[in-house]
Amino acid sequence: MQSINRQVLLKSRPSGIPQAEDFEIVEAPVPQPADGQVLVRNLYLSVEPAMRGWVSAVANYSQPVGIGEVMRSFAAGRVVASKAPGFHEGDLVVGMFGWQDYAVVDPDAIQRRVDERDLPLSTALGVLGLNGLTAYFGLLDVGQPKAGETVVVSTAAGSVGSAVGQIARIHGCRAVGIAGGAAKVAMCLEDFGFDAAFDYKAGDLDSALDRTCPNGVDVYFDNTSGEISDAVMKRLNVGARVVICGTASVASWDPLPKGPRVERHLLVKRARMQGFVIFDYAKHYDEALPVLADWVRSGKLRYREDVLDGIEHAPGAIAGLYRGENLGKRLIRIGEAPR
Amino acid sequence: MQSINRQVLLKSRPSGIPQAEDFEIVEAPVPQPADGQVLVRNLYLSVEPAMRGWVSAVANYSQPVGIGEVMRSFAAGRVVASKAPGFHEGDLVVGMFGWQDYAVVDPDAIQRRVDERDLPLSTALGVLGLNGLTAYFGLLDVGQPKAGETVVVSTAAGSVGSAVGQIARIHGCRAVGIAGGAAKVAMCLEDFGFDAAFDYKAGDLDSALDRTCPNGVDVYFDNTSGEISDAVMKRLNVGARVVICGTASVASWDPLPKGPRVERHLLVKRARMQGFVIFDYAKHYDEALPVLADWVRSGKLRYREDVLDGIEHAPGAIAGLYRGENLGKRLIRIGEAPR
Repeated sequence: MQSINRQVLLKSRPSGIPQAEDFEIVEAPVPQPADGQVLVRNLYLSVEPAMRGWVSAVANYSQPVGIGEVMRSFAAGRVVASKAPGFHEGDLVVGMFGWQDYAVVDPDAIQRRVDERDLPLSTALGVLGLNGLTAYFGLLDVGQPKAGETVVVSTAAGSVGSAVGQIARIHGCRAVGIAGGAAKVAMCLEDFGFDAAFDYKAGDLDSALDRTCPNGVDVYFDNTSGEISDAVMKRLNVGARVVICGTASVASWDPLPKGPRVERHLLVKRARMQGFVIFDYAKHYDEALPVLADWVRSGKLRYREDVLDGIEHAPGAIAGLYRGENLGKRLIRIGEAPR
Repeated sequence: MQSINRQVLLKSRPSGIPQAEDFEIVEAPVPQPADGQVLVRNLYLSVEPAMRGWVSAVANYSQPVGIGEVMRSFAAGRVVASKAPGFHEGDLVVGMFGWQDYAVVDPDAIQRRVDERDLPLSTALGVLGLNGLTAYFGLLDVGQPKAGETVVVSTAAGSVGSAVGQIARIHGCRAVGIAGGAAKVAMCLEDFGFDAAFDYKAGDLDSALDRTCPNGVDVYFDNTSGEISDAVMKRLNVGARVVICGTASVASWDPLPKGPRVERHLLVKRARMQGFVIFDYAKHYDEALPVLADWVRSGKLRYREDVLDGIEHAPGAIAGLYRGENLGKRLIRIGEAPR
């Protein structure tokens, strides 16, 4: 066990997308757990679009990370010392452990013990983590897809979007993916089995949607907002559901950017737009995880990962996400994971 | 029975709000019912904001009224001849009879026979008609208000808005009305018992909302869209519901007007915006009408009417609504109603 704990701290408050220079890496002593606490050696750190919100000063669904604090993050790791009942050395765990080598945490920071030892530990941060759960509850509970309907998802090659498309297909829907660039479109079609997909950067959104959604849109799983959403909104069917999961295309919400008003679409089509935050479903994670794990084992739910090796990649990793440079769920590997 | 049927025809397709010159009044012979049909003498014609949509060429939830056709309208009247089973001379009926003295209709154009003979016939076009039903289902089914919550409604002194506020109070909510002008604010507070109301034309919307909604907004019943809605959206509570019922403040939707994007509000607050068209509830009208009628009889649900005497007032009546010149449900009286 190394004696140094490398930590990524928030150095300055970004106004838009967090950049590498908004963080600094420091070295601290490895902390020791007090009674009731657990010491975790992190092996994978998560990188996700929601982190922009976590460091934003604008009112949000969680308190912003403080300047000088360890960057908030999900991580997966191994318990190396436990003074808490129910956790033992060697357990694999996932939770809010932050961007650091070691975390001393109370048991309530541990989302769960990872018992799917037949699957890679990294899946606990992706398809069997927040991303897969977001797709599962956002699509099924908020989007309410019915067999035969058309489900459109933006950032479709991403870890949430790719799961949304596959779960839509498992439920008998036609899945249409919107992604940035030919490589991601190919991933949607070849790796994830979308019925159709197109590159929003390659020409006219309207004609691409006309071509891929000849029967209109019943469920739109929105990870982007912006012009992509504006084009999809024009094609909603009567009774359509729009799941607002993310706003990746909007660089800043302060001041509020303007776009075409949605009220008339919603009224004429008796459609619904609903915001969705996965943490509200925390009590139901245990219902979804075995379902997701079985889909992964059977090959119905595939995933891609974009693994960066070394904590030194963490500071610039969020900005890279927003530039679309990753193919698959972005992770930072900082230790050797067991199988 | 007079021998002339005065009819108000759509003469030209308005691009925004229909004006008097978009209609013409003609005289035709009184039609006679064929087998299976009913001849109705209209006594009250309805005037409503939704008529703007009915004459609009822009895709909508119903086919537009054709040029040269009688203006589509709800009306209440008396059966003067019936060749249809179930309807008899002297019955009071309400339905889609158009802006005309006499209508020959198939039974499916008749919304219902009016059996509340203890209440004025005009209520069948307002608080016991489309307006009351819109308030009832829009608020209760789409808005899902819970006791103790704050319900905000725009065009609060209008026939829908005033019913929304009163039904909210019947359900234990705090009702806040937004109306245009001091007279309408006074109506909200004095006639309809809102807990608070303010004039959106008199100064700053933000400070008026801060003052009247100190605990934020749980349900927003939106009849206006536009700047009023933009201000309310900033105050949504977690889990808030926005009922999109009308867009009175927007003069034209072609091209789509721009406004502040709503996605971030919806996401952060896990809030819902949902469009609502009363006709989707047609099969449930019979459940709501006795409830509404009892509230009217007990004085819990009050209403105001703005009655124009004579069919010659019909052509300009919609534009007048959008200028806010009416105090209460606007009706055209074209015959003597029985009590």
